[in-house]
Amino acid sequence: MQTELSKRLGVEHAVFGFTPFPAVAAAISRAGGFGVLGAVRYTAPDDLARDLDWMQDHVDGLPYGLDVVMPAKKVEGVSEADVEAMIPEGHRQFVKDTLARHGVPELAEGEAAGWRITGWMEQVARGQLDVAFDYPIKLLANALGSPPADVVARAHERGVLVAALAGSARHARKHAEGGIDIVVAQGYEAGGHTGEIASMVLTPEVVDAVGPLPVLAAGGIGSGEQVAAALALGAQGVWLGSVWLTTTEADLHSPALTRKLLAAGSGDTVRSRALTGKPARQLRTAWTDAWDDPAGPGTLPMPLQGLLVAEAVSRIQKHEVEPLLGTPVGQIVGRMTSERGVQAVFDDLTSGFERAVARLNRIAGRP
Amino acid sequence: MQTELSKRLGVEHAVFGFTPFPAVAAAISRAGGFGVLGAVRYTAPDDLARDLDWMQDHVDGLPYGLDVVMPAKKVEGVSEADVEAMIPEGHRQFVKDTLARHGVPELAEGEAAGWRITGWMEQVARGQLDVAFDYPIKLLANALGSPPADVVARAHERGVLVAALAGSARHARKHAEGGIDIVVAQGYEAGGHTGEIASMVLTPEVVDAVGPLPVLAAGGIGSGEQVAAALALGAQGVWLGSVWLTTTEADLHSPALTRKLLAAGSGDTVRSRALTGKPARQLRTAWTDAWDDPAGPGTLPMPLQGLLVAEAVSRIQKHEVEPLLGTPVGQIVGRMTSERGVQAVFDDLTSGFERAVARLNRIAGRP
Repeated sequence: MQTELSKRLGVEHAVFGFTPFPAVAAAISRAGGFGVLGAVRYTAPDDLARDLDWMQDHVDGLPYGLDVVMPAKKVEGVSEADVEAMIPEGHRQFVKDTLARHGVPELAEGEAAGWRITGWMEQVARGQLDVAFDYPIKLLANALGSPPADVVARAHERGVLVAALAGSARHARKHAEGGIDIVVAQGYEAGGHTGEIASMVLTPEVVDAVGPLPVLAAGGIGSGEQVAAALALGAQGVWLGSVWLTTTEADLHSPALTRKLLAAGSGDTVRSRALTGKPARQLRTAWTDAWDDPAGPGTLPMPLQGLLVAEAVSRIQKHEVEPLLGTPVGQIVGRMTSERGVQAVFDDLTSGFERAVARLNRIAGRP
Repeated sequence: MQTELSKRLGVEHAVFGFTPFPAVAAAISRAGGFGVLGAVRYTAPDDLARDLDWMQDHVDGLPYGLDVVMPAKKVEGVSEADVEAMIPEGHRQFVKDTLARHGVPELAEGEAAGWRITGWMEQVARGQLDVAFDYPIKLLANALGSPPADVVARAHERGVLVAALAGSARHARKHAEGGIDIVVAQGYEAGGHTGEIASMVLTPEVVDAVGPLPVLAAGGIGSGEQVAAALALGAQGVWLGSVWLTTTEADLHSPALTRKLLAAGSGDTVRSRALTGKPARQLRTAWTDAWDDPAGPGTLPMPLQGLLVAEAVSRIQKHEVEPLLGTPVGQIVGRMTSERGVQAVFDDLTSGFERAVARLNRIAGRP
């Protein structure tokens, strides 16, 4: 699975794997793909440095990248406390009531809460970049809009390619104007923040909109046949996130969540604002139902919602309160039915891709 | 584009084209595809017979099929008047108010209204079948659930294959148990009634669920690259509906609607219950907005909603009241940017398919 982009990055397969787990990212690169470590959970720069050191020791010199969450719009002089103060009391009470109704215990003294939101703040993302640029990363991806111009310039000075996620051709064009190198076309069926246009329509639209810039297809991809479909649509590679969550190298810290992921069907996700205030696909749970219920207070805009629910989400995860327990994941979750190693996922992707190409050749009447 | 199914049906390309227009259906069959005439608008059996006569004269002996809308659940002894009586007065008033606000004129004396709903009634669909089985149709498709067992048996006696649309693997399995021959996997991005699972995920799920029964992929397909993607996912063919609406052979009776379709982007559709009471993708208009507005009365369940709005929809269409003017169409509408003949669409599909297969071979390192 070799495209111009995979050759340029020096990887065997045009498969980009996004994951919050260093062990998964390293295994993806070792399997011939391009591992991308999600940085959003690293609030302390030292923690990120520690894990990038570990990556360096485990990628066998193969290329890898980093994914940050950096808003393009800078809000000057606003602290986390300022944002906290904007949250209405009624919403705080709704969180308390919902947790109480499901008997969710408190966190123990000293247990960290809220890493989910803190990583979204620009100051934190910039701290992550200061660390990351000391390592030989080959790609910097931004999950939230175009990265600021100075960040793009800084990456390019170091020979680091910059990627940004887009849910529409319009977003993709904006990224291209911002000087980024790769657009990740994130379809409706993808996990995490998504728009409403499905991959089958979005991928070729984005390819047309930003070509010759390379496009990675994201959303709905977990098999080699789906890789072939995405590449048929003009993508120069695929961007997979969900499928790694149930690999043996992943460390969800929650057997109950792993069980839920393995049991979920493609219809068990929902595009909800419950997690961050922007629509993000995730497992449908009693928690997302509560936020999406018209009888409730509804969600707050980003970044308020994320800050509001950060501790609650930590409590739910820590104590594995099953009805509320969820995670961002795409519709491909229906295909994630067993725990497998990253290499096994790759073997499956490459053999399925070969099968699909052979099938298309037969249909096309080629020898 | 030859699959086992296209060979079995004796067509050159595994492209199934669904359309309410006989001229389009015949042109699809003549171009080497399989034309499927939508029967829902024929309330009078004689009108259907007239158009099937016309088809016979214009398909050059090539195969074609018919699509009916027949609910699997039979409601005994319920007339259209009985259903009318179940519509709340507040909803009727909302229709009147919305039409008045946009200055929609009445229909002229004697102008037919409401064909959209009448075709959904089982009696009507059975009348259509009585006519259709006198013609050498090769395929009978049902757009609404599994067809009743006696209809499947009657089709099979005549050597007619039966297809049914499914939005989930579960629906597809139910169809298979009902003895149908082909499942049309209708993805989220498709026009008309759709579920929430996008084609990229749905197609292989349905293939896995009902194999070796052949599956057609529907939703998001309007280019040859998208045909290649759908076939890579395991489909034995593609089912296209939207793309024909702006062909020169189509007869929308509304230049304003054609203009709206040509101008619309992939983000200009909505999955709304406004038309029939079940979620159906269509152009987003002031009409769908009114029904989807939480401040309004909301939609009624099928078949009440369709009956409630039938005359209103006819008035909006007849008088081309632009803000309200819409039609079922998929996200592929963003690619429908010029009026072309059906043959030109086919030329585009076949050349795009060849391009995509050649590209995949390069990526696979095949000669």
